[in-house]
Amino acid sequence: MQTQILERMESDVRTYSRSFPVVFTKAKNARLTDEEGRQYIDFLAGAGTLNYGHNNPEIKQALLEYLAEDNIIHGLDFFTAAKRRYLEALEEIILKPRGLDYKVQFPGPTGTNAVEAAIRLARNAKGRHNIVTFTNGFHGVTMGALATTGNRKFREATGGVPTVGGSFLPYDGYLGDGTDTLDYFEKLLSDKSGGLDVPAGVIVETVQGEGGINACGTEWLKRLEQICRAHDILLIVDDIQAGCGRTGKFFSFEHAEVVPDIVTNSKSLSGLGLPFSQVLMRPELDVWKPGQYNGTFRGFALAFTTAAAALETFWRDDSFAKEVQRKGEIVAERFQKIAAWIGEQGIEASERGRGLMRGIDVGSGEIADKITHKAFENGLVIETSGQDGEVVKCLCPLTIPEEDLREGLDILERSAKDALS
Amino acid sequence: MQTQILERMESDVRTYSRSFPVVFTKAKNARLTDEEGRQYIDFLAGAGTLNYGHNNPEIKQALLEYLAEDNIIHGLDFFTAAKRRYLEALEEIILKPRGLDYKVQFPGPTGTNAVEAAIRLARNAKGRHNIVTFTNGFHGVTMGALATTGNRKFREATGGVPTVGGSFLPYDGYLGDGTDTLDYFEKLLSDKSGGLDVPAGVIVETVQGEGGINACGTEWLKRLEQICRAHDILLIVDDIQAGCGRTGKFFSFEHAEVVPDIVTNSKSLSGLGLPFSQVLMRPELDVWKPGQYNGTFRGFALAFTTAAAALETFWRDDSFAKEVQRKGEIVAERFQKIAAWIGEQGIEASERGRGLMRGIDVGSGEIADKITHKAFENGLVIETSGQDGEVVKCLCPLTIPEEDLREGLDILERSAKDALS
Amino acid sequence: MQTQILERMESDVRTYSRSFPVVFTKAKNARLTDEEGRQYIDFLAGAGTLNYGHNNPEIKQALLEYLAEDNIIHGLDFFTAAKRRYLEALEEIILKPRGLDYKVQFPGPTGTNAVEAAIRLARNAKGRHNIVTFTNGFHGVTMGALATTGNRKFREATGGVPTVGGSFLPYDGYLGDGTDTLDYFEKLLSDKSGGLDVPAGVIVETVQGEGGINACGTEWLKRLEQICRAHDILLIVDDIQAGCGRTGKFFSFEHAEVVPDIVTNSKSLSGLGLPFSQVLMRPELDVWKPGQYNGTFRGFALAFTTAAAALETFWRDDSFAKEVQRKGEIVAERFQKIAAWIGEQGIEASERGRGLMRGIDVGSGEIADKITHKAFENGLVIETSGQDGEVVKCLCPLTIPEEDLREGLDILERSAKDALS
Amino acid sequence: MQTQILERMESDVRTYSRSFPVVFTKAKNARLTDEEGRQYIDFLAGAGTLNYGHNNPEIKQALLEYLAEDNIIHGLDFFTAAKRRYLEALEEIILKPRGLDYKVQFPGPTGTNAVEAAIRLARNAKGRHNIVTFTNGFHGVTMGALATTGNRKFREATGGVPTVGGSFLPYDGYLGDGTDTLDYFEKLLSDKSGGLDVPAGVIVETVQGEGGINACGTEWLKRLEQICRAHDILLIVDDIQAGCGRTGKFFSFEHAEVVPDIVTNSKSLSGLGLPFSQVLMRPELDVWKPGQYNGTFRGFALAFTTAAAALETFWRDDSFAKEVQRKGEIVAERFQKIAAWIGEQGIEASERGRGLMRGIDVGSGEIADKITHKAFENGLVIETSGQDGEVVKCLCPLTIPEEDLREGLDILERSAKDALS
Repeated sequence: MQTQILERMESDVRTYSRSFPVVFTKAKNARLTDEEGRQYIDFLAGAGTLNYGHNNPEIKQALLEYLAEDNIIHGLDFFTAAKRRYLEALEEIILKPRGLDYKVQFPGPTGTNAVEAAIRLARNAKGRHNIVTFTNGFHGVTMGALATTGNRKFREATGGVPTVGGSFLPYDGYLGDGTDTLDYFEKLLSDKSGGLDVPAGVIVETVQGEGGINACGTEWLKRLEQICRAHDILLIVDDIQAGCGRTGKFFSFEHAEVVPDIVTNSKSLSGLGLPFSQVLMRPELDVWKPGQYNGTFRGFALAFTTAAAALETFWRDDSFAKEVQRKGEIVAERFQKIAAWIGEQGIEASERGRGLMRGIDVGSGEIADKITHKAFENGLVIETSGQDGEVVKCLCPLTIPEEDLREGLDILERSAKDALS
Repeated sequence: MQTQILERMESDVRTYSRSFPVVFTKAKNARLTDEEGRQYIDFLAGAGTLNYGHNNPEIKQALLEYLAEDNIIHGLDFFTAAKRRYLEALEEIILKPRGLDYKVQFPGPTGTNAVEAAIRLARNAKGRHNIVTFTNGFHGVTMGALATTGNRKFREATGGVPTVGGSFLPYDGYLGDGTDTLDYFEKLLSDKSGGLDVPAGVIVETVQGEGGINACGTEWLKRLEQICRAHDILLIVDDIQAGCGRTGKFFSFEHAEVVPDIVTNSKSLSGLGLPFSQVLMRPELDVWKPGQYNGTFRGFALAFTTAAAALETFWRDDSFAKEVQRKGEIVAERFQKIAAWIGEQGIEASERGRGLMRGIDVGSGEIADKITHKAFENGLVIETSGQDGEVVKCLCPLTIPEEDLREGLDILERSAKDALS
Repeated sequence: MQTQILERMESDVRTYSRSFPVVFTKAKNARLTDEEGRQYIDFLAGAGTLNYGHNNPEIKQALLEYLAEDNIIHGLDFFTAAKRRYLEALEEIILKPRGLDYKVQFPGPTGTNAVEAAIRLARNAKGRHNIVTFTNGFHGVTMGALATTGNRKFREATGGVPTVGGSFLPYDGYLGDGTDTLDYFEKLLSDKSGGLDVPAGVIVETVQGEGGINACGTEWLKRLEQICRAHDILLIVDDIQAGCGRTGKFFSFEHAEVVPDIVTNSKSLSGLGLPFSQVLMRPELDVWKPGQYNGTFRGFALAFTTAAAALETFWRDDSFAKEVQRKGEIVAERFQKIAAWIGEQGIEASERGRGLMRGIDVGSGEIADKITHKAFENGLVIETSGQDGEVVKCLCPLTIPEEDLREGLDILERSAKDALS
Repeated sequence: MQTQILERMESDVRTYSRSFPVVFTKAKNARLTDEEGRQYIDFLAGAGTLNYGHNNPEIKQALLEYLAEDNIIHGLDFFTAAKRRYLEALEEIILKPRGLDYKVQFPGPTGTNAVEAAIRLARNAKGRHNIVTFTNGFHGVTMGALATTGNRKFREATGGVPTVGGSFLPYDGYLGDGTDTLDYFEKLLSDKSGGLDVPAGVIVETVQGEGGINACGTEWLKRLEQICRAHDILLIVDDIQAGCGRTGKFFSFEHAEVVPDIVTNSKSLSGLGLPFSQVLMRPELDVWKPGQYNGTFRGFALAFTTAAAALETFWRDDSFAKEVQRKGEIVAERFQKIAAWIGEQGIEASERGRGLMRGIDVGSGEIADKITHKAFENGLVIETSGQDGEVVKCLCPLTIPEEDLREGLDILERSAKDALS
C-alpha cells in the first residue's frame, strides 16, 4: 500500500488514518476492503454517516439514474425537481406520519453549518444571545457551533479566540444518580443573579455520540421540553448523529415524545455518505429574511436524490425501525456480556446507549485503545468516544446483516480478551 | 411547474429561487433547462462553482466509473485510493509546475469551513488572535468566517452576537484612485496605539466576487505580500471563488506572482458541483495536532474523484487557461460596450474584473435588477453582486462554447437596452 | 427639603435615593441626619464602605493633619510619603502578623477596577482566558468584571455586548444541603469535554454581599483552595465587601485559614469613605510590565493617609476584631429571633451571615421591601440584597455603639412586626 | 529618601516613579517638593488632573470647611446637600451659559468607569453594539473602555481576551494632509458590505492626550457631528483630559461649537485631585433603569464639594479661560522656538496642541526621553505621550504663575539643548 504521498501531503490534523493505517478502496454495506484485499467489518460507518451501509444498492440506483441524464447537479438554492422530490418524501414519509409540522432550511451541507444556522435562528427569533448546551456535547467546530461544543481539544485550538454565546450545564446523569441535573437549570433560570443569561435556546443530543454514548432519559428530555416551554426557550435537538434511525426511531426524540422547536440533521441524511444537512423549524420560527444565511452547496441535487431514495426505501413503514431495535438489543446484550467479563478482570466497565448507538465504557482511553487496536488487527473497524476516549462504541450500519453483526461482536469480544488478559 | 411544496416547506431564507422562479431540471455545460423545457444560458454557474460547466462529460465519466464499482464513497479522513489520486493530481499538475510547496487540509467540504480552518491555523501558528480582512470581503457566514465578512446582511443576523477577531481595512481602490490603501495598513502596523492588534494573518480575495467583482492590482497584492513578510504576518488568499481558473490562471494570485502562506479553495474545486474544499498551507505552518479540527464529510471520495478528473482534464497544460483569458477579453470588450451605452443613457457605468470574472457596475441595485430580470425573461441567468447589488456579473462556465457566450452577451445587451430605454 | 434639581438633573440610574428620598447632610459613626434634622441609625454604612463609621475621629484627624500642610494630594503613581506610610502600615500591621507575603497594586480606586486588574493579572500569569466565578457573585460592572458578576440587571444592560471570559459554577450550598458543589467543579476540571475551559483563576467572595449574604463554609473554601493548587489555578478572593474586618477578621478568608493568590480590597479600605482599592498578589505572580494597567487616581494620597490611619487605629491588636465578633453575635441572635417571629406569620425566614455581615432571608423582595420601608419610617436605614432583594441585610458600622446597635435592632424588629402583622 | 519599601512592595506595574525616582511630599500650585526639599516645576499636573494646581487654596478651603463639621463624606447615590450644591453649580455656571441641556450620571469616580457608562448608555439607547473610536485614542483600560483604546501596551495585556465592540477609524490628519479621514467613515457607513457594523456612537477626544497631543480640526469635528446626526449615531466626546478648561474653554468641544450627545469628564473635575467623574447626556438618552449601572464611590461628597468650589472659583466668567488661552500662546511660541532649534540639529520636530495642552513632537521616544530626563535633572517634571512616547508634552496647571511657566519653559529649552547638543 502506497501511503507516502498521503502522509507527506496531508496535514497533521488527520486522525482516523492513524488508527487505521491502510488504504481503503472498496466498501459494501458493513464491510470495508483495503488496497491489499483485506476485509474489515465496519462498526464505525462514517461516524454514523452510513446508517444504510456503504453503497446501498437502492440509494445508489437512484443516484445512477439521476446521473444517467444531464440532470442538474449543483443548483445553489434554485427550485429543482430533485429538491422537490426530497421535500415531498420528507413531508409524506417522515413529517406527516409523526404529526410534525416543520419548515426546512438547507444550510451548507455539513453538521456544523446546520448547527450554526439553528442557533442563529434561535437567537434571531428570541432576541437573546445565549444558548444553553450540555457537558460532553458535540455540535461542531466552526466558531459559532464551537460555543456549544465541550471538547477542549477543539476549544483550545482556536488561536486564543474565546467562543461567545454558549453556557454549559450538566447533562442527564452528570451529577450522579441521585441528582436530576435539570433542577440546577431550573434554579438558574429563576435566579436573577445566578449568572445564566436567559437563553434563546437549548441545544441537546438525546444520545451524545462524541461525548461517550450518553443517552439521556426520556423523562429528563420531557422535563427539559417543559422547562423550555415554561420559560419561552427554544428546544433544539441536534439529531445529526442520533437521527436517521440510529436509535431505533427516525428521530431520536421520538422515544420521549417531545417535539423540538428546531432540529438539525446531517450525517446519514443523504443515505449514501454525500454531504447534506438540514434544519427543521416550527413554521412560526422562520424569521429568516431572504439570504440572511447562505452557502454555496445548499442545493446539492445528488444529495436530495439519495436522501429521497433513503426515505422511500427505509421509512415507508416501521419495519426498518423495528429491525434496528432488534439489532440494538443484540448489541446491548453482547456488550453487557463483554463489560461483565472486563469487570471480572478488575476493570470497571458498563454498557450504555440506545438502539444501534451503543458503547462499552471501560473507564480509560488507554484500555479502550488497546481493545480497538486489537480489533483492527482482527478485522474490525471500531472507534472510541468520550472525554478521554474511554468508550468503545458501535455505530455499525443499521443495515448490517445479522451474521456480520455477530461476527463483528465476536471479534470485539475476542479482541477485548486478547487485549486485557 | 409545481412550486407549491417548495414555497411552503422551504425556509424564507431562500434567495435565488426568488430571482429565477422556475423549477430547473436539466443542465449541460452553459445551458439550464426548466421543467417546461425552456432553456437558459447560464452566466451564474453556481456562483462560480461550475467553472467546467454543468455535467462536464470527462469529469462525470470519472464519477460514473468510480460509482460503477463499490468503491468507498464516504471515508471520514481515512487513507483512500480516491484521496491519493487527488493528491497526486494536485501535486503533479498544479503545485509542482508552479513551484508551490504546500500541505493540504481537507476541512468540512464548504468554503466557510475552509476559511474557519485557515484563520484558526494562522492564529495557532502565530499566537495572535487578529485577522485583517478587507472592505467588501466575503469569506463565509459561520461565526469564525463571518468575522472577516463585510456584509451587514449577515453580520446583523447573528442574533446579537458580535463577531470576534477580524479587523477591516480598505481594499485596493477603496479610498479613491490617488490613495494606496496599503499605506494605511502599514501605518497602523507600525503605530503602537493605532488600535490595530498585530494580526496573525491577512485574508484577501484577489478579485472580490460577492463584493462587486473588485480586482486588486497586482502591484498592490505584491506589496501586501511584502508587508506581511516584513511584519511576520501570514498571507491567506481566499481563492474559493476566484480560483480554479476563473481569472485565467489556476490560482488567481499567479497573476501577481505572490506566494500565499495559506490558500483556501472550494466551489469549482470538485469540478462537477460536489461539495469539496481544501486549505493549502506552507509545510512549516502545519501546527495542527491530530484531530484539532474535524468534520464528518472531509473525506468525500466522489469529490476527490471528480476533482482529480478536473485537474487531469483541464490543467495538464496552459491551453485551457489561455482559452479562459481569450473569452475573458470577449466579455470585457462587450461589457465595456454595454457600459458605454448605459453611460449614454445618463447612468454612470463601468466594466471591471479579470478573466471570466467580470462585471458591469451600474451604480445601483435597482438598475442592475432591472437588467437581470429582463435578461431572465430573455433566457439568460445572470446575477448581481456588490454592497448594493449594483454590479451585473458574469460568472459563466469557463467551458462555455463561444457561440453560447456571444448569445448570452447579446441577450444581456438587449436586456439592458430593454430595461433602461 | 429641596430635591427638585436632584430629581431633574441626575440620571434615572440613581437607586438609593429612591428608597431613602431625603437629603442627607450630617453623619457621625452609625447615625445619619437629614436636612430637616431627622436622625437615622445606619445599617447600610455605604454598602460596607464605612466599617469604621461616618467621620471616624481618628481617621479624620489624620486627614486633617495631612491637609493642614500643602502635602501632595494627587500623585499619579509617584513615590510619595503618604503611599510609603500606607505600605508600612499594611506590611507591619496586617501582612506580617498574618504571615502573608503580598505585593500591592493600586489600580483605579474602585472595586471594579481592582477586579479588572486582578483577573487580568491572573490571565497574564497563567496564559489562560477563563475565570471561574460563582452563582450570585458580584464583582463589579465594568465589562471585564461583569463577566464574573451574576446579576441579570447589569448583564442585560450592556447594549447587546456579551461578556467574555467568565464561567459560573454553583456557590457553596447552591445545590442544596446534601451536595458539595465543588464536586461539580472538580468533575468539570478533569473532564476534557465538559465545556469548562481550564481557568486561569477562580474569583470568590467568602460571604456574598450583593448575592444575599451567603457565607461559604470554611471547609468548602479550604477545598476550593486545594482544588486550585492541584490544578495550577489561582485563587482570587474578592474581599471588597467582606474584608476590612466586616466578618470579624481583617481578611474574610482568615476564618478558613486559606491563603489566596490574589486579593482585592476596596470599600472600607480607606477607612473614611474615600475612593481607594488595592490588589494583593503573591510576589511571583507580579508579571505586570511597567504601565500595562493604569488609572489616573491610583495614587490618591488622602486615601493612603486615611487608610494608614485606619490600620493604625483599629488593627494593632485583635481587640477590634473581637468586638466585631461580639456584636455579630448580638445581631445574629436578634436576627434569629426576628426570623422566628416572621416564620410564625407563615413566611419562611432564616438568619444568615458571618461577623457583622448578616441578613434575614424572608423569601421575597416584596416582603423584604415592606420591612425596610417601614424601618426607614421608623428611623433606620437598611437595605436588601439577594437575587430578588429577599434578604434584609445589616452592614452597620463595625464601630457602632452597642446602644445604637440595639436600638437599630429594636427598630427593625418593630418594623417587621408593623409590616407583616 | 527611603524608597525600599515602595520598590519592594509595589507591583512592577508602577511607571511614573521610574521616570521621577524621588519621594514627593509637598506640592503647591505648579511646584512639587521632594523629601529632600528639592523643588520641581510641574508640567505634568497629575496627567491633567490638577488644572487648578496642587492644593488650590479656594478649593481646599471649601474642603476644609466641609470637613470641619461632620458632614456626610460617603453617600452611595443618596441625595446629599453636597451633590445638590455641585449640580446647582454645574447647571448655573457651566451648562446654562453655554445653552447645554444635559442630565448627569455619576459612575465610579474614574475616567474609565465614566467611559464604560457612556458607551453602554449609547448602546442601550440605540440598540446597536458597535462604537467607533479613533487611532491613537485613549479611553481607559477596563475591558469595555479598552475596546475603544488604541494602545497595544494595554490591548496585549488582557491575558488573551480580545475586546469586543469597538471599531477604529483614522483620526483627523492620520492619513496625511490631503485626506479628510471622515470621507472614509462616511463611505463605510453607506457601504453595506464595508465591514463596519453601524455604530451606536462615536467616541472622540478633541485633543488626544495620551495619543500624542493631536488636536482635531474644528471643521473636522463639526463634520463628524453632522455625520453622526445624519446616520442617527451618538457623538460622545471624551473630555476627561481635554475638558475642565485645559484647551482654553471649559469643554474642549466649545471651540468647534458642536453639541455632543454624551460627554465624559473626570481628572480635573474635582479640582483638587480627588477621584470624581461624570457622564453628561442629552435628557432623551437617559434610558437607564434604576440601578442598571452602579459603583460604590459614585456619591463621594468631598469631590462634589471641591468640584463645586472649582466651578464657583474659576468659571463664573470667562477671565480664567482667557488667561489659559494667553498662557497657551506663550507655550506655543516657546515650543515652536524649541522645535525649530531641534530641527536645526537635524531632528524633525514640530509644535502641536491647543490651549495649555501642548507638545513638541520630536519623532522618537528615545529623543523625547533624553529631553525629559534632562529636564527632571534640571528641576522640571514633564512627560511624553504618543504611540512611541515621541511627544514632549506640557500639561502644566492652568493656574501656573507666569514666572513659573516661563521658568519651566526655560528649563525645557535648556534641557533640550543639553540633551541634543
